[in-house]
Amino acid sequence: MATPSPQKIILIGAGNVATQLGIALYKAGHSILQVYSPSNKSATALAVKIKAQPITDLKKLTTTASIYIIAIKDDAIATIAKQLKFKDQLLVHTSGTVEMAVLKNSSKNYGVFYPLQTFSKSKPVDFASIPICIEANSKSTTDTLKRFAKSISGNVQEINSSQRKILHVGAVFACNFSNHMYAIAASLLSKHQLSFDLLKPLIIETADKIKQNDPHLMQTGPAIRNDKKTMAAHLKLLAADKELKIIYKLISNHIKK
Amino acid sequence: MATPSPQKIILIGAGNVATQLGIALYKAGHSILQVYSPSNKSATALAVKIKAQPITDLKKLTTTASIYIIAIKDDAIATIAKQLKFKDQLLVHTSGTVEMAVLKNSSKNYGVFYPLQTFSKSKPVDFASIPICIEANSKSTTDTLKRFAKSISGNVQEINSSQRKILHVGAVFACNFSNHMYAIAASLLSKHQLSFDLLKPLIIETADKIKQNDPHLMQTGPAIRNDKKTMAAHLKLLAADKELKIIYKLISNHIKK
Repeated sequence: MATPSPQKIILIGAGNVATQLGIALYKAGHSILQVYSPSNKSATALAVKIKAQPITDLKKLTTTASIYIIAIKDDAIATIAKQLKFKDQLLVHTSGTVEMAVLKNSSKNYGVFYPLQTFSKSKPVDFASIPICIEANSKSTTDTLKRFAKSISGNVQEINSSQRKILHVGAVFACNFSNHMYAIAASLLSKHQLSFDLLKPLIIETADKIKQNDPHLMQTGPAIRNDKKTMAAHLKLLAADKELKIIYKLISNHIKK
Repeated sequence: MATPSPQKIILIGAGNVATQLGIALYKAGHSILQVYSPSNKSATALAVKIKAQPITDLKKLTTTASIYIIAIKDDAIATIAKQLKFKDQLLVHTSGTVEMAVLKNSSKNYGVFYPLQTFSKSKPVDFASIPICIEANSKSTTDTLKRFAKSISGNVQEINSSQRKILHVGAVFACNFSNHMYAIAASLLSKHQLSFDLLKPLIIETADKIKQNDPHLMQTGPAIRNDKKTMAAHLKLLAADKELKIIYKLISNHIKK
């Protein structure tokens, strides 16, 4: 990790991403001047952790910071951006899907700071290994943003908007959809009075395998073996749940190919 | 882990499960007398690791062992079992789906020894925390099998055949299907010259979260937020791949519910 050159930062947002990012930036030695959220409770909850001022009105935003980070829901970014007007302060959003261009009328220097990770307010994460995908409107802004990102992560990547969108779809499959597979398994077990704990070592090992291996080569189970008897038995067990049967069939067929 | 009372063991099979199980049993102090596989290469590869005799003919099976473990493909278990005839030696299979009863004509004492984990020949696993689901044809055989399982795992569970089947379907979702989600993501990234390494911290964190949390509560992403704009953008990106679009829609709809 690079030696941080401490920045004055404003966090716009106080959700999962803002919370974990705010904590990481604070720990890296940056000053978080303000945390904005329309909810006073949310703004305060994060602000106290990182010695910032909580604000609930964008008009109270100080202009003396050097970096403004918008970490809010994707569909609210453009609306918030329209209410911001800076001279040359660096303005970034943290979204995997929103175009960098939505910020172009809000400052001379703007970009994207997308940490490729899943965040919860309550679960601490180690930013050091999280890929931070950056993009900015000029070479010099890119350099500034890269230096800044390196103050919290050893894995900073220049990724343009179209690549970032592909990464985001990839993340939906790899994270959101795999988590949903866990959730389906948990529901199945729970319906039959079996503890989800039984599957936890399996889930951890399945994820751990891809650290060193191509997931295509690590595929196991009845579908890849084309074990029709087992798949038929599984579909019979799932008979009560039509949708689950369809999901089972569809994914199994896709694995076979 | 219990202090092992060393057993004389025969392994029927030399695949992923047999390999990792054989190594764990050998390390726990048991004697593996023989390893059977129709392939001399496979039998030998495992046998040399655990100081056993490789055999390729079931007729050469010694009857002096106390525990016989069938760790082969599900649909071959019944066929192999028919060729075995013991007096009271403990005979078990390691399958998540096959009925215990397929072994009933092969010995007076029989059961199931199902390690709930995904195995590869090359990746070592720590058996200590792997749930081993056991079932046997009598109380005394259950006790014997339980003591034996405890010699390699601290997580031994009595699970009957119908529960085991549910566990196996759950494992297909939690392991096979989540791995396939990783594989889909890897293909997407690769098509766009992006390294799969970028998603690895996300995958590890997603799995790690379920150690302490219900996966239903950990669900993130556009579907759970009902973020229609992002989902529409994703479907547009996937437009070239009809099947992937269907999978995306189906899982997203299931998450929303």
